[in-house]
Amino acid sequence: MRSVYVLAAAQTKFGKMRKTAREAAVIAAKEAIELAGIEADEVEGAFVTNAFGVAERQGHLGPIIMSSLGIPEAPATTVESACASGGSALREAFINVAAGFYDVMLVVGSEKVSHLDTLTATTYFSYGSDYLLEGGNAAGFPGLYAAMATAHMNRYGTTEEQMAFVSVKNHKNAMFNPKAHFHKEVTVEDVLNSMVVTSPLKLFDCCPFSDGAAAAVLCSEEIAKRHTDTPISIIGSGRAGTSGALHDREELTTIASTVLAVRQALKQAHIALEEVNFAEVHDCFTIAEIMAIEDIGFVEKGEGGKATEEGLTDLDGNIPINPSGGLKAKGHPVAATGIGQVVEAFEQLRVEAGKRQIDGAEVALLHNIGATGGSCAVHILRRD
Amino acid sequence: MRSVYVLAAAQTKFGKMRKTAREAAVIAAKEAIELAGIEADEVEGAFVTNAFGVAERQGHLGPIIMSSLGIPEAPATTVESACASGGSALREAFINVAAGFYDVMLVVGSEKVSHLDTLTATTYFSYGSDYLLEGGNAAGFPGLYAAMATAHMNRYGTTEEQMAFVSVKNHKNAMFNPKAHFHKEVTVEDVLNSMVVTSPLKLFDCCPFSDGAAAAVLCSEEIAKRHTDTPISIIGSGRAGTSGALHDREELTTIASTVLAVRQALKQAHIALEEVNFAEVHDCFTIAEIMAIEDIGFVEKGEGGKATEEGLTDLDGNIPINPSGGLKAKGHPVAATGIGQVVEAFEQLRVEAGKRQIDGAEVALLHNIGATGGSCAVHILRRD
Repeated sequence: MRSVYVLAAAQTKFGKMRKTAREAAVIAAKEAIELAGIEADEVEGAFVTNAFGVAERQGHLGPIIMSSLGIPEAPATTVESACASGGSALREAFINVAAGFYDVMLVVGSEKVSHLDTLTATTYFSYGSDYLLEGGNAAGFPGLYAAMATAHMNRYGTTEEQMAFVSVKNHKNAMFNPKAHFHKEVTVEDVLNSMVVTSPLKLFDCCPFSDGAAAAVLCSEEIAKRHTDTPISIIGSGRAGTSGALHDREELTTIASTVLAVRQALKQAHIALEEVNFAEVHDCFTIAEIMAIEDIGFVEKGEGGKATEEGLTDLDGNIPINPSGGLKAKGHPVAATGIGQVVEAFEQLRVEAGKRQIDGAEVALLHNIGATGGSCAVHILRRD
Repeated sequence: MRSVYVLAAAQTKFGKMRKTAREAAVIAAKEAIELAGIEADEVEGAFVTNAFGVAERQGHLGPIIMSSLGIPEAPATTVESACASGGSALREAFINVAAGFYDVMLVVGSEKVSHLDTLTATTYFSYGSDYLLEGGNAAGFPGLYAAMATAHMNRYGTTEEQMAFVSVKNHKNAMFNPKAHFHKEVTVEDVLNSMVVTSPLKLFDCCPFSDGAAAAVLCSEEIAKRHTDTPISIIGSGRAGTSGALHDREELTTIASTVLAVRQALKQAHIALEEVNFAEVHDCFTIAEIMAIEDIGFVEKGEGGKATEEGLTDLDGNIPINPSGGLKAKGHPVAATGIGQVVEAFEQLRVEAGKRQIDGAEVALLHNIGATGGSCAVHILRRD
């Protein structure tokens, strides 16, 4: 297996945009290609992801993007794993380059949903659940995560205040991220007093519907060394699943696919978790970040809420989580999210993250979840 | 790169079915796993494809199928490349096994569209085109292929009769395929007199909307040798694109992605095209088969119609094409099609194809096109 490098990563501003998903994808891709210092025709293939093509009546987005980039012959395969679409696409590009099938690959994720009314958007999102058993029975994602939150509160004493601290932190981090959806700090009281979506989750416990695109250029070692003095390598990739529907699980307070994918990624990276300096994790709801930092192993099971409240995961804490602002405040343009995490890692590891720069950031862990965990992709990046 | 084997391949009957896509996928997957002589929990990961999830409001199908198979931890990534979804999924599984990431992978494609009215189904299909420029402007696939047919007729003198011969042959082959959508022979006159869909294409020039599922188990050499005395290996894989929209092309009578993907697959297989004994090609419309056999190189450009009329591609011809009945008569459950081609190759190469068995079938070429060629996947399989 060859070493694989991230030569560049770029994204549009997340939030509401007037562009289509295809336009945004091309903008992010062009910016990543330019930042990589290569010509578009050096890109040999791509993985493209756009979970809500139905929102613009466009499937098979790959060839359209490649045509717009002027490289129609380069194959572009679309990957979808609900909200883990970006991480899944990243993994397949990683494997293709690692295996020697391509020397330079593009990964691009894009989403446009803000033109939909909330009910339609929520319905499309619920296609990512087990629709027959969940989404089609009015169990949308807020409800499913509310069930997990309730279980976590009952079992470990996690409080609504502790969940609110996740939101407060991520909104604070996003203040320093010019590409974030929200630039607005919130207090614990703001979160607790916001509209109840599905108890115990309030509006500010939930990530937004965002538009946006992100792209990354992956390459072989030879090409990376030719183009940069600061090579960022992907040293570990993990990918696992768990039951599609929540009711099939023995335990609601953990997401098994996170545990498995992290274990795989660390093993491949030949590092211990303690060597990770920060992480971007999948905080689609505040409870999701709490479960993620527990399942990854940054804190003991059940201690995630307390650790967050105590500042362990702050930008200057022991293990900063979601320096970008996370899904909660940077935003969640579904298929772009996992690739947006690469943008954050790329900037942090190259010490280009400005006011949100983490001191001594050399190893990053990226955690991307699809639905309630049916898909999980974890990647570990390092500045060589 | 490791050698990759097809340990088993199975499919449901193509045609109208009362099952959902998820049910059909599980049936095909279970049959393939059983035929492989392995236990489900030996499957380490999967690529799943279902181009028209919107028809049943289900995205993120992978974890649902894995849950139904009792292996929820095994990751399942969804791939979509319009009508080349099956071939694209096959390629990624091939690469994952070749690279050593997994020893046993499942590939499964499934589709259910027969519950939709024709207009809705046609609209969903057109999402696979460049919808902004084509599908959304009433240029559906029959129209786009009619443009290609007209160009081919004008440039090479291809006739409607010659196109009809493709349909006649494929319907004849399907008579011997118990899993085919249609078991009904047609004559040249039947084709010529059938309803005009988009001139010059008549109804019997067009493949049907089909439901159905197909699955294959791919594995490493070590596992293949442990389970079978008749190992079928994937010796070549090619994947290329061409412009998403037809109007961007300099030439309508050729599909550039076919030419490129075939070249890649042959190079990887280290064989000459003359060593291929038969092919399953993407005959979504009769003109598509004619263009495919030219672009692959079985006949000179412009000679595809004549060669078909003269019987070159018959079951007992020099180069049998679509012994299964092809998309035209075996049927075209979109994402299942490319994996259904593996089923045909598997049965032919193991000399288990019954009345449609091709004498001396040792090397098969599989050709799967997405939309009007924006995606193309080509695989070469051999009995070792």
